[in-house]
Amino acid sequence: MPTQVKALAMDSATAPFRRIEITRRDPLPDEVVIDIKFAGICHSDIHTARGEWGDVIYPLVPGHEIAGVVTAVGPEVVKFKVGDHAGIGCFVDACGECAHCRIGEENACLERTIWTYNDIGADGVPTAGGYSQQIVARADYVLRIPDSLPLDKAAPLLCAGVTPWSPLVRYNAGSGTRLAVVGLGGLGHMAVQLGKALGCEVTVLSRSLRKREQGLKLGADHYYATADPATFEDLEASFDLMLCTVSADLDVDALVSLLDLGGVLVFLGLPPDEQSFHIEPLCLGHKVITGSDIGGIPGTQAVLDFCAEKGIAAQIELIGADEVTEAYNKVVAGDVEFRYVIDVATI
Amino acid sequence: MPTQVKALAMDSATAPFRRIEITRRDPLPDEVVIDIKFAGICHSDIHTARGEWGDVIYPLVPGHEIAGVVTAVGPEVVKFKVGDHAGIGCFVDACGECAHCRIGEENACLERTIWTYNDIGADGVPTAGGYSQQIVARADYVLRIPDSLPLDKAAPLLCAGVTPWSPLVRYNAGSGTRLAVVGLGGLGHMAVQLGKALGCEVTVLSRSLRKREQGLKLGADHYYATADPATFEDLEASFDLMLCTVSADLDVDALVSLLDLGGVLVFLGLPPDEQSFHIEPLCLGHKVITGSDIGGIPGTQAVLDFCAEKGIAAQIELIGADEVTEAYNKVVAGDVEFRYVIDVATI
Repeated sequence: MPTQVKALAMDSATAPFRRIEITRRDPLPDEVVIDIKFAGICHSDIHTARGEWGDVIYPLVPGHEIAGVVTAVGPEVVKFKVGDHAGIGCFVDACGECAHCRIGEENACLERTIWTYNDIGADGVPTAGGYSQQIVARADYVLRIPDSLPLDKAAPLLCAGVTPWSPLVRYNAGSGTRLAVVGLGGLGHMAVQLGKALGCEVTVLSRSLRKREQGLKLGADHYYATADPATFEDLEASFDLMLCTVSADLDVDALVSLLDLGGVLVFLGLPPDEQSFHIEPLCLGHKVITGSDIGGIPGTQAVLDFCAEKGIAAQIELIGADEVTEAYNKVVAGDVEFRYVIDVATI
Repeated sequence: MPTQVKALAMDSATAPFRRIEITRRDPLPDEVVIDIKFAGICHSDIHTARGEWGDVIYPLVPGHEIAGVVTAVGPEVVKFKVGDHAGIGCFVDACGECAHCRIGEENACLERTIWTYNDIGADGVPTAGGYSQQIVARADYVLRIPDSLPLDKAAPLLCAGVTPWSPLVRYNAGSGTRLAVVGLGGLGHMAVQLGKALGCEVTVLSRSLRKREQGLKLGADHYYATADPATFEDLEASFDLMLCTVSADLDVDALVSLLDLGGVLVFLGLPPDEQSFHIEPLCLGHKVITGSDIGGIPGTQAVLDFCAEKGIAAQIELIGADEVTEAYNKVVAGDVEFRYVIDVATI
C-alpha cells in the first residue's frame, strides 16, 4: 500500500518551503525503501527550485544528497537488507543497457537518466527528492553507505563527493600530482580532502584567505587568494590538475596560465553565461579545459568506500526543516562554511 | 669560412620578397650543414612575416618546413653523414636538459627554444629559415628524412605533418577512433592521411563540399559541409577526437556538440581573437577542449618515419622564388589546394 510521508516543498520559484505529504509507492521486486535520515543542500537544488535551470515541476521536493536506512526490499533485491545504511544521489534510474550505462556512466544514459527530483519517474509520477522522509528506488541505483561513515556527514558525498572524485580518478590524481582546488565550498572542501588522501600536493585557490585555516586543516598544503594578482604570477605553470568549483564567471585564461605542460583544468561549477578564452595558451603546452558532471553508480560507490577507508567525510552544519528557506538564501550569499544538511526527522 | 648563400627576405610587413645574401656559419663540432632543396610555405610564415604575431626581425627569411641534403658534418656528429636527406622544422635548438626537453617536447623548452627564423641563435645572430639555400644546425635538432620520401613532398611534414601527428598520438588515435578533421588545408590534409593510416574512421568537416573529392581521395570516409546546419544535427555526439585546423573565429559550442562522451576537441589553428564557449556542455559527458603546437624532435622524426612506412606525403604545388609573394596572398585568400612548396634552386 503506498505510503504517505512528510516532505518539504517549494510551490514556486520564490515561495518559502512548506511541509506537504507525498506518496511513495510500494517497492517493486527490484526496489528498495529507504527511510531518509539526512539530506544535503546542494547549490543545484537552489538553481533548480528557483527555476534558474529551466522548467520546474511544482510542488518541488529537492534533495539529491540522501542518506538513510533500508526499511524494506523487494524480493529480487540481494544487494541490500533491512537495516543497511544506504544513499541516493542525483539520479534514481537509467536504462542500464546503453553504451554509457555499461561503462558506469548512468548519469549520461543515452535513453533516460531519471533525476532524483524535478523529473518524471518510470511510474509516470514526478520524482521527489531527499527533503522527505522516505524514498523508493531500484536497488541498482542505491548506494551502500559503509557503517563507519556517520550518515549526516555521508549525505553530501552522494553529490559533492563524487563530483570531484570523478575527475580525480579520470586524470589519475595521486602521489606527485600538483592539484589546485579553486573555491573552497561544498565541492571544494571535498576535493581538498579527496586529493590529499590520494596523495596529491594540494593548493587551494580561494577568493580571499578567509577560510585559510579550515583549508589547511582539511589537508591543503598551500592556500592562495585569487584576489591577489601576485598569486597568478607566483603560481604560473604550477599545476597538473585544477578542479574549479566556482559557478560564477571565470577568467579562463588566467586559470589556464597556472597549468603546466599537459595540465588539465576541470570545471565542476556551472557558470550559466558564456565564458571566453584564447586558444593559443592551450596550444603551447597542450593544456586541457574540460568539465565533469557528478559520476555514475560505480564512481559514487567508490567515493563512499574510499571516504570510509580514509576516514573522510563532509564538513556539515546540521539544520532543521524550518531553517531550509533561510539556508537557501545563505548558500546563495556564500554564508555557509561548506555544507548544510537537513535533519529529516524535523520535517 | 662562413658561407654566403642566397635567400628570400621580406623587409617589412608589407614588402614583397626580394633576393638577398645571408651568411651561414661553419658547422660547430656537433652541427650539420644542409643544402636546402625545398621549403614549404606555412600560414605561420605569413602571420610572422606580416607582423601579425608580434615583433619581427627584418629582413626576415621565413621557412620552417625544410628538406635538403647534408653537405658537411662536424666531427662529433654520428647521426648524419654527407649525402643524407635531412630536414629542419620550427626550431633549431633548445636546452636539451630541462624537464620538457627530456620528455621530447623541446618545442616547449623551459630555457630557450630557438625558432628557425625570427629569433636570435645561440651565436647571437638572427636566425634565418628555409627560404634560403643552406642552413646550419645542431644535429640533435635535425631530422632524418627517409630516402623513400620525395624531398619536396616531405618538407611540409616538418610542421604540417607533426602538428596533427602529436594529438593523434597523444590521444591514442587508431582503429575504432571516430576522427573529425575540421578544415582541409595544409594541416587538415595531413590529418586525414595520418588518421586514416592509423586506422581511424575519418570525417572531414569543411566549410563547403568544394574539396570533397580530394578529401575522399586522401582517405576520408565521410565529408560534410559545416555551412550546412544539418551537419551539426546529423553528427551530434559522433566523434571521439576532432582536430580543428581552422584559424578563423570558431563556434566552439557547435564543435563541442559533435563530441561523444569523453571526446576531445584539439585546436591546431590559432584564431587570434578571444573565443567564447559554455561550460555546461563540457561537463555533461566530460568533453575536452585542448590545443596542440607542433611537436618535439622525437615526434617529428616519428611522423617522418610513419609517412615513409605508409607511403604518405604532403600534396604540394611546387613554385619558384618569384612566385612566393603572390603565393602568400593566395594562401591568405584560401586559394591554395593544400601546400605551396618553394623550389629553393630558383632563389
